[in-house]
Amino acid sequence: MVEEREDDWRRDLEQANKDVSRDHPIHIGIVGLGLIGGSLARRLANAGCKVSAWNHRDHPYQDAQQAGITCTDTLEELVASNPEILILCNPLVAMPSVLQTIKPVLDPEKTTLCDVGSVKGLVRQQVHEAGLVDCYVGAHPMTGNEYSGWDSADPALFDNALWALTYGPHTEYRRVVQVAGMVTRSLFNRLIIIDDETHDRAAGMISHMPHVVSTALINMLVCDEYRNVDAALAAGSFRDMTRVSLTDPSRTRAMVEENRDNVVDLLKDMSHRLNDIADALAANDDAAISEFFAQGNPFRTYKTTQRKQFTGEDTQTMFSSLSLDDDWRATFLKSARRGEQIVRFTAPNHALAECRYAI
Amino acid sequence: MVEEREDDWRRDLEQANKDVSRDHPIHIGIVGLGLIGGSLARRLANAGCKVSAWNHRDHPYQDAQQAGITCTDTLEELVASNPEILILCNPLVAMPSVLQTIKPVLDPEKTTLCDVGSVKGLVRQQVHEAGLVDCYVGAHPMTGNEYSGWDSADPALFDNALWALTYGPHTEYRRVVQVAGMVTRSLFNRLIIIDDETHDRAAGMISHMPHVVSTALINMLVCDEYRNVDAALAAGSFRDMTRVSLTDPSRTRAMVEENRDNVVDLLKDMSHRLNDIADALAANDDAAISEFFAQGNPFRTYKTTQRKQFTGEDTQTMFSSLSLDDDWRATFLKSARRGEQIVRFTAPNHALAECRYAI
Repeated sequence: MVEEREDDWRRDLEQANKDVSRDHPIHIGIVGLGLIGGSLARRLANAGCKVSAWNHRDHPYQDAQQAGITCTDTLEELVASNPEILILCNPLVAMPSVLQTIKPVLDPEKTTLCDVGSVKGLVRQQVHEAGLVDCYVGAHPMTGNEYSGWDSADPALFDNALWALTYGPHTEYRRVVQVAGMVTRSLFNRLIIIDDETHDRAAGMISHMPHVVSTALINMLVCDEYRNVDAALAAGSFRDMTRVSLTDPSRTRAMVEENRDNVVDLLKDMSHRLNDIADALAANDDAAISEFFAQGNPFRTYKTTQRKQFTGEDTQTMFSSLSLDDDWRATFLKSARRGEQIVRFTAPNHALAECRYAI
Repeated sequence: MVEEREDDWRRDLEQANKDVSRDHPIHIGIVGLGLIGGSLARRLANAGCKVSAWNHRDHPYQDAQQAGITCTDTLEELVASNPEILILCNPLVAMPSVLQTIKPVLDPEKTTLCDVGSVKGLVRQQVHEAGLVDCYVGAHPMTGNEYSGWDSADPALFDNALWALTYGPHTEYRRVVQVAGMVTRSLFNRLIIIDDETHDRAAGMISHMPHVVSTALINMLVCDEYRNVDAALAAGSFRDMTRVSLTDPSRTRAMVEENRDNVVDLLKDMSHRLNDIADALAANDDAAISEFFAQGNPFRTYKTTQRKQFTGEDTQTMFSSLSLDDDWRATFLKSARRGEQIVRFTAPNHALAECRYAI
């Protein structure tokens, strides 16, 4: 390990880990006071952070200011106030124009750029095109609900939330630690640190592809001449599996297209699996049918164990200590792949990760 | 319309519609006091019906007898007591042996045979092989939960339940009316009357095929080398869509295999749809993508309207009067396809069906 590097880390971590009790509170800038940005701004303000915010319409400003959030008239003004972390909570469609506006004003020496978008590869590409990639750390908090806008914002939305932070080849370690410090110390949240591709593929697997499958289920029903008989007989399984198809399909489409390549691969995989099990059933291929119905057992065990942990039947928690060096990317990724979640940094080059039951 | 036939109907209907206030209460026999059979027996007993029951093990007998249910030592004894309707609530796997046992004892003149199995074609075939098809009406109440056994039995399980009654080429109209009378007058439930094939295909569409899709989703996750990252990011959509995959996979397998041909066709259809939308996304085919995300809109509107009806925002209920003649099968099926649900018979050859918002 290079000594000088460790000194850098120590300095950076001390800076990043200075919590609400330090001389001056950490200054966070929030772009967009919608459901996520609003909830985040309020939670950070509650935690004693200095929070500045800009929204494309000023209707939440009176409320926000009463919640201790400083609102700026322009986006430029927000960026020029040099927040230590500037978090883009605007819709993904507005990202290019937001980036063009902040580009000439943002001082990368003073500000780390961050966002909360649900796809990371696309955002990093846009940030790269705006020439801001060196000061950028991707972030995706696993929270939200079916509502939107400032009026639905609630600091409790981030209770117990998990964040995915993402890095690219140019990401600076100190900025990852800085954002992680905000997540663990100001928000009391947990995080995993992974590359954009791993994030986007996982998001495709557990959200985007399933949304398409859910949509295909209602499409099939609508196309069936006996659709009203189907609907009369529909009970729990169909209701659960089609719930997400009822959300605004244009929003689903946008989400899917933002992660197009992964979703295409995952849909092809799913299509093959369904075709294969159909063939196995038609041929009464006992081995293949048995394999299909047993393959998911590790996930079933994982869910059962998880439930026991939630209900307190299993109270033992193990932690893993991560030593970070030049290979910090691989160390973080391996930790996430073991099913661990980082709860805090204990030294410039050490993080503590909670071990969870892994699949 | 043949006059004699109408007289038959009138006589049969008068017999069937005699409710709990008639001289002697309707006598129902229940085979199997599990979740469904037990709930049904208790609800019928509460409604003043004479209920006799047999279970393959006698552990529920003390409880059942306190609930006003007469329990018999043997299945033969139950059948020999000549219940007006004998409802097979045993597991489908036990059906052939149950049918062999009841065959020599059952008097088709006195007893209508019925069941509550979740597939109808297979049961009718088994009933046919046992030589009992002429006195048989298929039935499938749309109720249940994740539990099983007498201890979970609850008459409220049938609150507001919809039944599908099914007919074959040999089904006697009077027996359909007889079972329908029990459903509407003793259970206060609603029903649709359809053929076995329509039932089984619909059940495949809204339950069996989705169960396989849900299972394939967790299989994909388990096979992914980044499965613990996937699981960490998994939120509402994945949880909803994989809930049914967590039920005992051997039960899911049995259910799927009992409706094999339909499930195979439906899985092939789903597989093609997912392959097609993957191709459209890969090719950025705007027309095909738009079509995919718009196709399910009639179902979205249906669900929105249904929710309004549940919340009482829409209080208007329309009824359709069904005139039944020799074409009663087609009349019932058309009614079900219009999204109607029968609430009662108002005359031997007239039924009242509630019109619901159709897709």
